Amino acid sequence: MGIPQFKEVRRAYGFDDVAIAPGSVTINPDQTDIAWSIGDHQFKIPVIASAMDAVVSPDTAILFGKIGGLGVLNLDGVWTRYEDAREVLAELTSAPLDKATPLFQNAYAHEPVKEHLIGDCVRKIKKSGVICAVAMTPQSTKRYAPIAVEAGADIIFVQSTVTTARHISKSYRGLVFSELVESIKVPVIVGNVVTYGATLELMETGVQGILVGVGPGAACTTREVTGVGIPQVTGTMDCASAREEYFRKTGRYVSIITDGGIRTGGDLCKVFASGADAAMLGTPFAQATEAPGRGFNWGMATPHPALPRGTRIKVGTKAPLEQILFGPSNVTDGTMNLISALRMGMSMVGALTLRDMQQAELVYAPDIKSEGKVFQMQQGRN
Amino acid sequence: MGIPQFKEVRRAYGFDDVAIAPGSVTINPDQTDIAWSIGDHQFKIPVIASAMDAVVSPDTAILFGKIGGLGVLNLDGVWTRYEDAREVLAELTSAPLDKATPLFQNAYAHEPVKEHLIGDCVRKIKKSGVICAVAMTPQSTKRYAPIAVEAGADIIFVQSTVTTARHISKSYRGLVFSELVESIKVPVIVGNVVTYGATLELMETGVQGILVGVGPGAACTTREVTGVGIPQVTGTMDCASAREEYFRKTGRYVSIITDGGIRTGGDLCKVFASGADAAMLGTPFAQATEAPGRGFNWGMATPHPALPRGTRIKVGTKAPLEQILFGPSNVTDGTMNLISALRMGMSMVGALTLRDMQQAELVYAPDIKSEGKVFQMQQGRN
Amino acid sequence: MGIPQFKEVRRAYGFDDVAIAPGSVTINPDQTDIAWSIGDHQFKIPVIASAMDAVVSPDTAILFGKIGGLGVLNLDGVWTRYEDAREVLAELTSAPLDKATPLFQNAYAHEPVKEHLIGDCVRKIKKSGVICAVAMTPQSTKRYAPIAVEAGADIIFVQSTVTTARHISKSYRGLVFSELVESIKVPVIVGNVVTYGATLELMETGVQGILVGVGPGAACTTREVTGVGIPQVTGTMDCASAREEYFRKTGRYVSIITDGGIRTGGDLCKVFASGADAAMLGTPFAQATEAPGRGFNWGMATPHPALPRGTRIKVGTKAPLEQILFGPSNVTDGTMNLISALRMGMSMVGALTLRDMQQAELVYAPDIKSEGKVFQMQQGRN
Amino acid sequence: MGIPQFKEVRRAYGFDDVAIAPGSVTINPDQTDIAWSIGDHQFKIPVIASAMDAVVSPDTAILFGKIGGLGVLNLDGVWTRYEDAREVLAELTSAPLDKATPLFQNAYAHEPVKEHLIGDCVRKIKKSGVICAVAMTPQSTKRYAPIAVEAGADIIFVQSTVTTARHISKSYRGLVFSELVESIKVPVIVGNVVTYGATLELMETGVQGILVGVGPGAACTTREVTGVGIPQVTGTMDCASAREEYFRKTGRYVSIITDGGIRTGGDLCKVFASGADAAMLGTPFAQATEAPGRGFNWGMATPHPALPRGTRIKVGTKAPLEQILFGPSNVTDGTMNLISALRMGMSMVGALTLRDMQQAELVYAPDIKSEGKVFQMQQGRN
Repeated sequence: MGIPQFKEVRRAYGFDDVAIAPGSVTINPDQTDIAWSIGDHQFKIPVIASAMDAVVSPDTAILFGKIGGLGVLNLDGVWTRYEDAREVLAELTSAPLDKATPLFQNAYAHEPVKEHLIGDCVRKIKKSGVICAVAMTPQSTKRYAPIAVEAGADIIFVQSTVTTARHISKSYRGLVFSELVESIKVPVIVGNVVTYGATLELMETGVQGILVGVGPGAACTTREVTGVGIPQVTGTMDCASAREEYFRKTGRYVSIITDGGIRTGGDLCKVFASGADAAMLGTPFAQATEAPGRGFNWGMATPHPALPRGTRIKVGTKAPLEQILFGPSNVTDGTMNLISALRMGMSMVGALTLRDMQQAELVYAPDIKSEGKVFQMQQGRN
Repeated sequence: MGIPQFKEVRRAYGFDDVAIAPGSVTINPDQTDIAWSIGDHQFKIPVIASAMDAVVSPDTAILFGKIGGLGVLNLDGVWTRYEDAREVLAELTSAPLDKATPLFQNAYAHEPVKEHLIGDCVRKIKKSGVICAVAMTPQSTKRYAPIAVEAGADIIFVQSTVTTARHISKSYRGLVFSELVESIKVPVIVGNVVTYGATLELMETGVQGILVGVGPGAACTTREVTGVGIPQVTGTMDCASAREEYFRKTGRYVSIITDGGIRTGGDLCKVFASGADAAMLGTPFAQATEAPGRGFNWGMATPHPALPRGTRIKVGTKAPLEQILFGPSNVTDGTMNLISALRMGMSMVGALTLRDMQQAELVYAPDIKSEGKVFQMQQGRN
Repeated sequence: MGIPQFKEVRRAYGFDDVAIAPGSVTINPDQTDIAWSIGDHQFKIPVIASAMDAVVSPDTAILFGKIGGLGVLNLDGVWTRYEDAREVLAELTSAPLDKATPLFQNAYAHEPVKEHLIGDCVRKIKKSGVICAVAMTPQSTKRYAPIAVEAGADIIFVQSTVTTARHISKSYRGLVFSELVESIKVPVIVGNVVTYGATLELMETGVQGILVGVGPGAACTTREVTGVGIPQVTGTMDCASAREEYFRKTGRYVSIITDGGIRTGGDLCKVFASGADAAMLGTPFAQATEAPGRGFNWGMATPHPALPRGTRIKVGTKAPLEQILFGPSNVTDGTMNLISALRMGMSMVGALTLRDMQQAELVYAPDIKSEGKVFQMQQGRN
Repeated sequence: MGIPQFKEVRRAYGFDDVAIAPGSVTINPDQTDIAWSIGDHQFKIPVIASAMDAVVSPDTAILFGKIGGLGVLNLDGVWTRYEDAREVLAELTSAPLDKATPLFQNAYAHEPVKEHLIGDCVRKIKKSGVICAVAMTPQSTKRYAPIAVEAGADIIFVQSTVTTARHISKSYRGLVFSELVESIKVPVIVGNVVTYGATLELMETGVQGILVGVGPGAACTTREVTGVGIPQVTGTMDCASAREEYFRKTGRYVSIITDGGIRTGGDLCKVFASGADAAMLGTPFAQATEAPGRGFNWGMATPHPALPRGTRIKVGTKAPLEQILFGPSNVTDGTMNLISALRMGMSMVGALTLRDMQQAELVYAPDIKSEGKVFQMQQGRN
C-alpha cells in the first residue's frame, strides 16, 4: 500500500490453533521418559498443581507429592488467612454467582495472612515426606519467603499476573530477584512471563524456573480487562527460545513451566511441543474429588478489591486425582488420564524424552473447523 | 498462480483480533500518567463521551468535565431541537424495537434545530466551570460553529460518517476546514477517518485532532449497509502513522482519537497500544445511571430518513458514571473500572505515559479461540 | 520445512471477509453515476434480477425494466413448461420442506419446455416496451436462442453452473460460443465463471458479458456437493483482471457481472469494489411483494433429478421491489434501499462512477469478529 | 521482532478450509474415468469402506465388492471375536451413550480374537467372488496376516493410529514392513500416516498403498486426547508429494488413500484435488441401510481400555448403500450420490481422470463464512 507501518502485528497461537505432526519414528508409550527436575528435586511426572485455593490445600499438596508431581500452596490465600479455611471455602462456593465477586473481595480483604499459619502449612506438608512448594506475590516475598524456608519449604514460587526483573515503584523498593536467590538457599521459580526479553532478564537473576502464561486460564479474565495476554503456544515458544539462548551462552538450563489454559491431554502434549519443561494446571485438578474447591475454581486475581480479573467458575467434580492423571478414562474428550495421553502423544511423535518432544513439528490448524467435529455439532451425540 | 492481481487485500485488525504483549519492565499502576491535552485544555483522563443523544446531555457533559474527562454535546440532536428533550427521549426509548426506526426518523426530521437552544446548552455547560465541547455535521458547521463559539464553546467537533478534506458537492459549497480553523479561534477536531491519506490531508488544514472510526460502534451498521469500514486497531494504526509523519515534517502534534467499538478495559488499552492519544466511548457511558438514554443507545445515523445505518440497542443501566470509570468493579468482564484497567494494562506493559503505551507490542490472537473461553462457553458459569 | 509443496493454496475472499476503505475524497451521494450498458442497451441501475423462477416472471421482468434495471427470464423453468405456471409455483411453495426436493425434481422433469411459450413470454415482455433478456443452458441454446431472438429478445444469457469456451462431450457437439455470437445478432452474456483463464477464453469468443459466481448463492449448495466454488470477491477480482487484460490487448470492454450471494447494500458495494460492472441478485428480489416465489427461492440446480444442488429456502416477503431498491428503508441491516446504499458507499469512497468504485481499497477484515457485533449478539436487541 | 523463532508453524488445511477452482475446460460427467487399481486389482470406483465394525461386516464387504468398490474387514473387531457378532453389536448400539464407553472397553477386551473366525470371514467373502481385503494392527500382523492370506485374502491393510517404518519397542520385535511385503504375496497397504518423511520411508519398504489421516474422522478424538493430528487436505498433499518424489526416483507408483473425515461429495472431490488416489470412508457408509452399526459408528480406538480416543456417535440410517453412492439423491447437502458428485466435480474442473483431478487448483476459503450460508443460518429453512 505504500503506507508506513505503525507497528508489526505478529501471529500468536493458542492451544486450539495448533496440532502436532506425528514423527517418522514411533515408540511404545511405556518407553517414554517423562521425568523432570528442578534443582535437586526430581519428579516422576512433569505436572504441577496451580497455587489456587480451590486446587491446592496442604492435604492435596501432600497427595500431589505422593503421586509423583508437585502441588504449590498459595501463601496469600485462605490457608494462611483462616484457621478454618474449609468453612470459608464452603461459603465462597455456595453463594449464587451474581453475589460471588463481592464475597470473594471481602473474604480475602477481611482477614490478614498470619505468619504462624504459613509455618503450620509448610510443616504439615513436609511431615508427610513430600517436596513442599509455596507461592507468594512479589510484594509478600520478602516477608513470607524466609518464614516458609525456615519451616522447611523446598521451592519458592514468586508469582503475579506479569512479573519482570525490573519493576518500578515509588511506594516500596521492589523485590530484587538476584538478592532473593542469593539469600534463600532453595530454588526460586518466577512468573508469569510470556516474552523472550523478560524471560532472558529473569534468567539472568539466577532463578531456576519461569512460569509462562498471561491471560489464558479458564478462571482468568486478564485479557478482557486489560487487553494484555499472549496465547500459550506462542508464549511458551518465545520463552523457550530465551531458555535455549541463555543455555547456549551460560551452560545453565532454566526450566520453562507453562501455566494456565491446559484442559486436555492434547493441550498437555502441545505444551511440551511448544518447548516447555513442565506444565502447571488448575482447572483439571479443581475437578478432582479431593480438590478443596468443591467443584469450583477461581483465579488469584478474582478477589481484587477494585478490579477483579477472574471469576468463580463451576468446573464440576469428575474423578479422584489419581484417575484424572493416570486413568483409566471413561470419557473420550481428553480430559482424563492426562499422563497416558502425554505418553501416547510422545509415542506418536517418536519422542523418548520431554526434551525430544520439544522438537515436534507444529502446524496451524484451528480446531473449530476440524473435520468431523462439525458433523458432531450438527448431529449431537447419542 | 501467475494471474495478474486485480488489487492487494491488506489484513486489517479489530479489538478482538489482537492482544498486547507485556513488557520487560513493569511499573506500579499508580505511577502511570494518563493525562492528555488538546490545545490549551488539559484532561486528567484520556476518555471522551461520544456526541450521542443517549450519552451526552448538558447535564452529563458537566458530569464528564467534573470527573476529569470530556463529554461532547451533539448540536444536531434532540437537545437543540426540543425545549423538553427528555420527553422525546422517553418516547424513543419506550417504543417497541420494531417500531423504533420510523419513530427515530420522525423525531429528528420533524423538528428543526433551534439556534437559541444551541446557545442555551453551551452556556449551561460553561456555567458549571467545565470545558465545553460540541459536535456538528460538516453541513451544519458554518451555521452552528460561530453560534456555539460565541456562546462560549471551547472545542468544536465536526463529525460525519466519513469526512475528508476534499468533499465534492454540487448543491452547496463544501466546508473548507482551513477556513474554519482560521475563522474560529478554538480547537477543531474532525472525523471520522480511518486512512493514512485522508488523515494527512486533514492535518494539513490545521485541525487539532482526528476522530478515527468508520463502522465499528455497537450502535452503527455502516459496514452492513455500505460495506465501508475499517476495524479499529488498523484504522488507529494507519492514522497514527500519519500523525507521526506529519509531526516529523512539521513539528506540530495532532491528536488521534479513536471513536467507537470500545466496550472493555481491554479495548481501551488496545486503543492506545494502536497509537491513539485519546478514546471516545459511547455504549459504556450509555450504561451509566446518569445517561439520558435510559438504558438504550443509538447512533447519529439511526434517524436517517431513507437509509438508517444504526439501530436502537438496549445496553442496560450498570452503575454511576464514576464507578464505570474508576471502580470499584464488581464484574470481571472488563466493562467496569475502565481507568484502573488502563493503568493496570500500562503497568504490565511498563508504560509510564500514554505515549509509551503507543509503543506496546501487539500480536494477532483472535479472542474467540483463546484458551479457557471455550471451556466457559461449554460449561456455563454457575 | 523443506518438504516439496504439492500445490499452492491461494487465499480467496468472500463478501463477509472484506471491507472497503473510505477514500481521501468524498462526494455527495446524489452526484454518483451508476448507469451501465451492454451493447446498445443502457440501464439506469447496475442491478439485474436472476433468471430464477421465484424471482423473474414475465410480469416482474417488465417491472424490473420499468424501474431502470433488467430482469432475466429463465427459459428452462416453469414459465415455458406450463401454461399456468402460477399454479405449479403455488404447489411448490406450499409443500413441507422435507417433501420439497422430490416435488421439484418432478415438476421440472414431468413437463417439457414448449417452444410456443418461449415466444409468448418474450412477446409479452417486449410489448411493455422494456428490454427483454432471457436465459438458457448451453444444451438448450441452439434450440431456444433463435426462437427467443425471433420473438424479439434483446439479450441472451447462456448459463450453467460452470461454463467454459471448451466443453468436452461425446453425446452432443458442444455449443461453440463464437458461432452463437456470430449467428444471432443480439448481445450474449455467458456464465458462470470464476477464474482468470476461463474468462479470457470466453471473452475471445466475442461474448459481451461474463457472469461470475460458482457456489455462492443462498439457494445453491454446489460447493457442499462438489467442493467446487470460489468466494465472490476473489472470483470477481480474478475475472476483472481478465477483463482489464483483454481490454488492454483488444480495446473491447466486456462486462463482468457478479451473480449470487449478494444480500445487502454492503455486499453490493463490495461487488463493484471487487471490479464488477453490474450485479445479479436473486434472494433480495425474491423477497419483493411482486416476486412469483411467494416468499421462497430456489436455484436452477434444485430440481436436478439425480444430484440436486440447492434447496428451497424461505426468504419471506419484505416490501415492494421499488422500496427494496430505492427505499425508504425502515430496517438497519442493509437489506433495503440497495441503490441508495450503493450511492452512499461510492460517496464515502469518493467514486463518481462505477469504474471509479472498482479502484476502491479493500481490506481483509472478517465480519464475524467486528467490534460491536459481538456485543449485540450477547445482549440481543430490545 | 528480532526474536529467535523457536520453531516454524506451518498452515495446515482441512476439508472445510478449501474449495476447488473450476477449470478452463469442462467435460460431460459421464465421460470422467474414476477407475483405480492396487496391484492387479481393478476397481470401478475409488472408494473404500473403512475397517470399522459398524461399517464392514463380511456381508457388507461382499456388497461393496459387487458395487465396484472395496470393503475392508477389521480382523481385530467383533467379527473375529464372536461367533454371533450381531448380538454384541445390538448390545453396543442400544446402551445409553453415558454407559457406552465402558461397555465398548469390555466388549473388545473380554473375548479374544479367534483364528478360525478369521479364516471363516475371509472364505465367506471370497466365496462371493469379490476381492477380499482385511485390516489388522501392526501388533497382530505377524499372526493374522498369514492366516488371512492362506484363507484367500487379496489385500492386507496394516493400520494403527500412527504407523511408521521405524517403531521402537522393548516388549516385542516390531513389525518390519519389508519382511512382511516379501513374505506374503499380496499387496500391503499401511497407515495411518500424514507426513512426507514417514510416507517416503514406508514406500521404501515396498508397500503398495499408504493410508492418510490422523485425527480427522467423525468418530475419532485422537487430536483432543493427544494433540496429534493433521487436517486431511494438508496431510494428503504432503503424502502425495512423497508419492511423486518416490515415483520420480524409482518409477514405482504407490497409492495414496485418504482415510477419515469425508462426509460429502465436496469432501470426496477435495480428497482427489489434494492428490489422493482413493478415499476411505466410514461414517457415510455407517449410514447405509445395510450397515452392521444399525445407525451408529465408532472408531477402532473407542474400546481402548485406559485411554479411549473416540466415541460412539449416532449417524442415523439414510438409504441403501447403492443410493448413497450412485443416487438418486433427495437431499441437497452433498451427503448422497457421492459418485455422481465426484464425476460432477471432475466435470467442472475438466478432469478426465483422477490423476487429472489431482492437478485441480485449490483455494483457502473457509466454509463457515461463505456467502449465503450465514443467511440460511439466520433465517432457518422452511
